[in-house]
Amino acid sequence: MRLYWDEYTYKEIEELLKRDPLIILPIGSVEAHGYHLPLGTDMFQPLWLAEKLAENFHALILPPIHYGWTKSLSSFPGTISIGFDTLKNLVEEILREVVKHGGRKILIISGHASSAHMAALRLACEKIVKENVEVKLMLLSDYYIAYQYRGEIVPEDDSHAGVIETSRIMAIRPELVKKEYVFEKREEKKYMVLPDYREIAPYATFSDPKGSNKELGEKLNTMILEELIKMVKINFDL
Amino acid sequence: MRLYWDEYTYKEIEELLKRDPLIILPIGSVEAHGYHLPLGTDMFQPLWLAEKLAENFHALILPPIHYGWTKSLSSFPGTISIGFDTLKNLVEEILREVVKHGGRKILIISGHASSAHMAALRLACEKIVKENVEVKLMLLSDYYIAYQYRGEIVPEDDSHAGVIETSRIMAIRPELVKKEYVFEKREEKKYMVLPDYREIAPYATFSDPKGSNKELGEKLNTMILEELIKMVKINFDL
Amino acid sequence: MRLYWDEYTYKEIEELLKRDPLIILPIGSVEAHGYHLPLGTDMFQPLWLAEKLAENFHALILPPIHYGWTKSLSSFPGTISIGFDTLKNLVEEILREVVKHGGRKILIISGHASSAHMAALRLACEKIVKENVEVKLMLLSDYYIAYQYRGEIVPEDDSHAGVIETSRIMAIRPELVKKEYVFEKREEKKYMVLPDYREIAPYATFSDPKGSNKELGEKLNTMILEELIKMVKINFDL
Amino acid sequence: MRLYWDEYTYKEIEELLKRDPLIILPIGSVEAHGYHLPLGTDMFQPLWLAEKLAENFHALILPPIHYGWTKSLSSFPGTISIGFDTLKNLVEEILREVVKHGGRKILIISGHASSAHMAALRLACEKIVKENVEVKLMLLSDYYIAYQYRGEIVPEDDSHAGVIETSRIMAIRPELVKKEYVFEKREEKKYMVLPDYREIAPYATFSDPKGSNKELGEKLNTMILEELIKMVKINFDL
Amino acid sequence: MRLYWDEYTYKEIEELLKRDPLIILPIGSVEAHGYHLPLGTDMFQPLWLAEKLAENFHALILPPIHYGWTKSLSSFPGTISIGFDTLKNLVEEILREVVKHGGRKILIISGHASSAHMAALRLACEKIVKENVEVKLMLLSDYYIAYQYRGEIVPEDDSHAGVIETSRIMAIRPELVKKEYVFEKREEKKYMVLPDYREIAPYATFSDPKGSNKELGEKLNTMILEELIKMVKINFDL
Amino acid sequence: MRLYWDEYTYKEIEELLKRDPLIILPIGSVEAHGYHLPLGTDMFQPLWLAEKLAENFHALILPPIHYGWTKSLSSFPGTISIGFDTLKNLVEEILREVVKHGGRKILIISGHASSAHMAALRLACEKIVKENVEVKLMLLSDYYIAYQYRGEIVPEDDSHAGVIETSRIMAIRPELVKKEYVFEKREEKKYMVLPDYREIAPYATFSDPKGSNKELGEKLNTMILEELIKMVKINFDL
Repeated sequence: MRLYWDEYTYKEIEELLKRDPLIILPIGSVEAHGYHLPLGTDMFQPLWLAEKLAENFHALILPPIHYGWTKSLSSFPGTISIGFDTLKNLVEEILREVVKHGGRKILIISGHASSAHMAALRLACEKIVKENVEVKLMLLSDYYIAYQYRGEIVPEDDSHAGVIETSRIMAIRPELVKKEYVFEKREEKKYMVLPDYREIAPYATFSDPKGSNKELGEKLNTMILEELIKMVKINFDL
Repeated sequence: MRLYWDEYTYKEIEELLKRDPLIILPIGSVEAHGYHLPLGTDMFQPLWLAEKLAENFHALILPPIHYGWTKSLSSFPGTISIGFDTLKNLVEEILREVVKHGGRKILIISGHASSAHMAALRLACEKIVKENVEVKLMLLSDYYIAYQYRGEIVPEDDSHAGVIETSRIMAIRPELVKKEYVFEKREEKKYMVLPDYREIAPYATFSDPKGSNKELGEKLNTMILEELIKMVKINFDL
Repeated sequence: MRLYWDEYTYKEIEELLKRDPLIILPIGSVEAHGYHLPLGTDMFQPLWLAEKLAENFHALILPPIHYGWTKSLSSFPGTISIGFDTLKNLVEEILREVVKHGGRKILIISGHASSAHMAALRLACEKIVKENVEVKLMLLSDYYIAYQYRGEIVPEDDSHAGVIETSRIMAIRPELVKKEYVFEKREEKKYMVLPDYREIAPYATFSDPKGSNKELGEKLNTMILEELIKMVKINFDL
Repeated sequence: MRLYWDEYTYKEIEELLKRDPLIILPIGSVEAHGYHLPLGTDMFQPLWLAEKLAENFHALILPPIHYGWTKSLSSFPGTISIGFDTLKNLVEEILREVVKHGGRKILIISGHASSAHMAALRLACEKIVKENVEVKLMLLSDYYIAYQYRGEIVPEDDSHAGVIETSRIMAIRPELVKKEYVFEKREEKKYMVLPDYREIAPYATFSDPKGSNKELGEKLNTMILEELIKMVKINFDL
Repeated sequence: MRLYWDEYTYKEIEELLKRDPLIILPIGSVEAHGYHLPLGTDMFQPLWLAEKLAENFHALILPPIHYGWTKSLSSFPGTISIGFDTLKNLVEEILREVVKHGGRKILIISGHASSAHMAALRLACEKIVKENVEVKLMLLSDYYIAYQYRGEIVPEDDSHAGVIETSRIMAIRPELVKKEYVFEKREEKKYMVLPDYREIAPYATFSDPKGSNKELGEKLNTMILEELIKMVKINFDL
Repeated sequence: MRLYWDEYTYKEIEELLKRDPLIILPIGSVEAHGYHLPLGTDMFQPLWLAEKLAENFHALILPPIHYGWTKSLSSFPGTISIGFDTLKNLVEEILREVVKHGGRKILIISGHASSAHMAALRLACEKIVKENVEVKLMLLSDYYIAYQYRGEIVPEDDSHAGVIETSRIMAIRPELVKKEYVFEKREEKKYMVLPDYREIAPYATFSDPKGSNKELGEKLNTMILEELIKMVKINFDL
């Protein structure tokens, strides 16, 4: 079974679009996630979800956007941040083409959840929905769901490269997770604009990943997936 | 063995960059390729090459850019063209980050070879090389090499979705190639600006794919790879 | 006592800047706030705070920016939304000039708190701080503080044009608050991109203002002011 | 009586717009005006006029734009120049919203009159009028009127921070005018492009303010106001 | 004797630039000038001046820019207006290259004098002069000089396509001037923004060309040339 | 007989456009062409062709664009490269005006043929043709035709400033061609991005001009012209 849009010929896509399928655009970022997690952490998580959702809903997955806006971490080696406008235009132009060909139910899942990154996506989405009132567009970061479990099965203050992300990647790409991690979080002055998070998180880890494990990751992935399935059914009448 | 940049942690990338490795950015397009080839045809070919090159040179592959400029085919269902400026800025911003972290030997392989698409890439590359004279940047479409074999082992007039592409995808992703194809090419008035290629190639196939086969595809892939290896060695002193 | 930057001559500003004063930029929006509150609600609140802070810290208040990004409410009569880029550039250019003349301690208070609006401000601020590492820049919406009191002295779900805003404007500009209000909130599908909030809040009131009163407004204003004073002292070493 | 647009609720504005009122947008600049005048000189003058006009015509005053294009004076402390494009876009976007809500008679008064600043306003206005032929839009600087009185009741060569401006601010904001002034005007090579007016007017005063007085200011303000009233009546059929 | 920059080889230009010559950039517009004058009127006048000046000062003339900003006349057939930003960028980029190669004394003469057109040129010039303080840049329209003669040898209200322009073109390109002209000027409401001048000048003639003749044109051309020569000597120390 | 658009009055153009004439836009570049050829080489060639074509077809020639994109040669003295976007916008805006006035048959001849330069022109043309499907637009560089003769009457590897260009300019502007030339071509690494061609062609001559002569130039010019006439007849049904 093929899940990805670009694995089909144009005639097949033409046929598939007549059934008004769910179309998923996964967006990641290439970003330092501590000594222990791979740079693609924010891509691997929504990709896993996109594939499970696609199986469940006979959805089509658009080729993913691997790069996001992550300027505040971009002094860490390997991190690649694209510009705000580039990200916004990229998403807007992809969506416009999909809508032109008949796509009406679109779900964007971003593994990265920083506020400027999400604002770029939101601006793109709003423009498309204004241009095409008949299009249903759902936009979220899977972190929005994951963070609801903080204080329950994960620490109250869990954050970037902490227990949630470490456990989830242990379940999805275990071979890429390092055994050792380093954690140090320095105090932050509230509301001060920090151009570089290195000052407050010298190892690109914002909360202690201690206690992370594969089983927890699988549980989190399943919980997020189920919550997403429920919302997708309601939001798109599927 | 890991081939992709985002499968490493930031500390690992920091270490790897000290050895001054070859870094490969594969670029594709989501584009109608006749009734017989998948929309991702222009991505699958450079990705195959990138992986072989990465194995050969211990290179790092950056997360691919799946979308390109392909306006003239974008009326065909499923085709997704992004804007010229977006493509240029995207490549420029990714390269700037890679260079910031110490990348000095960069190879861009684009599966798509239309002149405006390549001009966007070239403008991005020229800006980066002007800013960083120490950076070596190689930019090509693998089609540039493949087309040299026209008149030899493939038809003289072979083009988009013809024998070269069909055979190569038969070798790389055989399960995605359809048995039946439709070919019709209408006469074109030379140098007239055509905004939509549908007028001259109603089935998004620019030359007859008749005679395509997997063995020829494997042969072409190998020839292109070997030519690329030779050039990379010379150009980057590897 | 003069509080505003533009009430001074250029020589006076030159002298004042030598003392490294706190400089405050108040930002509002022109936006429907139900049947009962004036369009300038988001400007009047930070202006009140800015003046109190200026008195307390001998700060200078820059001429306010009355307009913000509020596209999702802009179908309501009287609402005026400027573009994302215009807002970002406006703030960035003002800050750059202030820094050029020697400003080093800058506080931006936005009465409007929508995420895209705040992202525009944040992008502008980050650029300035990157260009000038010696500059301390604090950015917040006074709503961020006010919302901490939800569940305590104001309803748990208080929002746009609700008890907090109504009470605060009753304390600041009582003559502009209407006696009657209309409240209706329709169910919202979570994470669906809504280009126009009219669908879910037909009267531009997102939570019930019932129970609002001047005394509560004065209490809230004082609490926010005190919290702000405390943070400003810490953040700017004042 | 309320004069400002943002002092009304959205329902009130909706009602008021049905009567097709005159709508005034005052624009200033934050700009050095010698040792004797405040930086807000170019804002205080059109604001005074706007309020008098609003009383006379039951007009609505839009929240003012305090910042203008004034690059050539921006090396003087306290001067804040925004970019040409930002100013143009800001005015264009505000006007577009006003017109969307039904505004048909719009008057823009700019206290600042430099040619590039006025060109930015003009470009914005022309775009709006092209998009909406039914809109009547009047654009001027109150200086255009004031300068007609040169050679009569004020010196022939009166200019920036000279007798007109000093007298008018003495009448409008007397407490902000300093007793002492410094005047020096160096010779200027005609038509040479000067990026910084400091070279020719080292104290940001372009003509001698000697002889300025409050009575003259009141007289000038009244003359300008009456001229404006006359023109507004003719131009908008009021 | 060669007058134009592009008639020399690059080595010759390299040599010539060592003598620090005056460099002239003539700018025109393609614009309706009544029933009697050619569309290139605004180009032919500064070109004539540029050639005379070049002979006089051994100056180099850059290839002319034939197109300008003339939106308000662009509904008249044949008129070609380019965008404000395009004009600004074009001039800025040309100047930057000339300065890069060593040009230090630059004179821009624009035949077209509309305020937005001139503002575009001014913004470009200011940027270049800010970047290169050693560059002397003179910018004017030859109309600025011609208009000083109004009330003397030409009518007080002479304007676009009137006596000055008609006479001057009679002297420069007599074969292009038609015998018959049509003049009608409708009343204009002062300061109202008019997107299309057709409303007030239905034949693209703003003042009556009656009385124009070749001798007057020659006299005007000579007077303007002499005035220009005088100013160039002073401004560039030639 | 007048050939140029701007030699006519607007009424004449209005009349001429009713006959649906061929309209030619010649585009050049200001660019080093060795020690022996003038900087305007790329303008003189298409201008000659445009005039011959205009005579043949009673066509109108638009005022030429003298400047093009030629960054890679812009370190050579005298070369003036404008930006990619400026060139694109300039052409697009000129074409849009011509089409607005009724132009339906447009031929663009560019003397310069670098791929980025041509891509800018192509993007502009495609936009216009998409907006106006009834417009016939032909775009080429006369080099595209000239290069077909390589291996026949000119050397196989003839290129920039070589036999073709030298001979053609000898025929068109003999007085501007120097007797001596210098030729050196260094080896180039294939597909490496070179920001400055000085490295490989230190004298801005890409192939040996040896053997160039006026007769060959006249022959080439005639052959190109005849080929162009043939294509124009077919493409525009003339």
